[in-house]
Amino acid sequence: MYVIIVYDVAVERVNKVKKFLRQYLHWVQNSVFEGEITLAEFERIKAGLTDIINEDEDSILIYKLRSMPKRESLGVEKNPIEDII
Amino acid sequence: MYVIIVYDVAVERVNKVKKFLRQYLHWVQNSVFEGEITLAEFERIKAGLTDIINEDEDSILIYKLRSMPKRESLGVEKNPIEDII
Repeated sequence: MYVIIVYDVAVERVNKVKKFLRQYLHWVQNSVFEGEITLAEFERIKAGLTDIINEDEDSILIYKLRSMPKRESLGVEKNPIEDII
Repeated sequence: MYVIIVYDVAVERVNKVKKFLRQYLHWVQNSVFEGEITLAEFERIKAGLTDIINEDEDSILIYKLRSMPKRESLGVEKNPIEDII
């Protein structure tokens, strides 16, 4: 499956979240990661994030798609995914 | 079409971007809007955002999907879209 993960977490946990997500996904913009993962990885990501975040303060959205979506960018393209894949 | 828009813009332009996107889409998390729009609205959104942002500093990603994707959230659900629709 292809996921887009957008997080809004307190400053003191941002680096932990980034470091964790980098193991599985590509960083595409401030607070946004995306990539193709297996169902097992998806479960590991959810469990890992739940461990890191404060569930009363932080907020994470995970969009589950079948495949890589079409994407357009305006302004600075911080990390064009085409360079990574 | 269904779009997810994630923006990373300088503080001085955040409110302008929010106010603009609120005309077309639902706010779902800090820096994230989504919703069903027409192709004409999509073009208006792109043109409007291009006017607002500084293209050398700000960064906006627009994911174009066919329909509303599956979504899971961890932590605080800031604005459950189900409440809006």
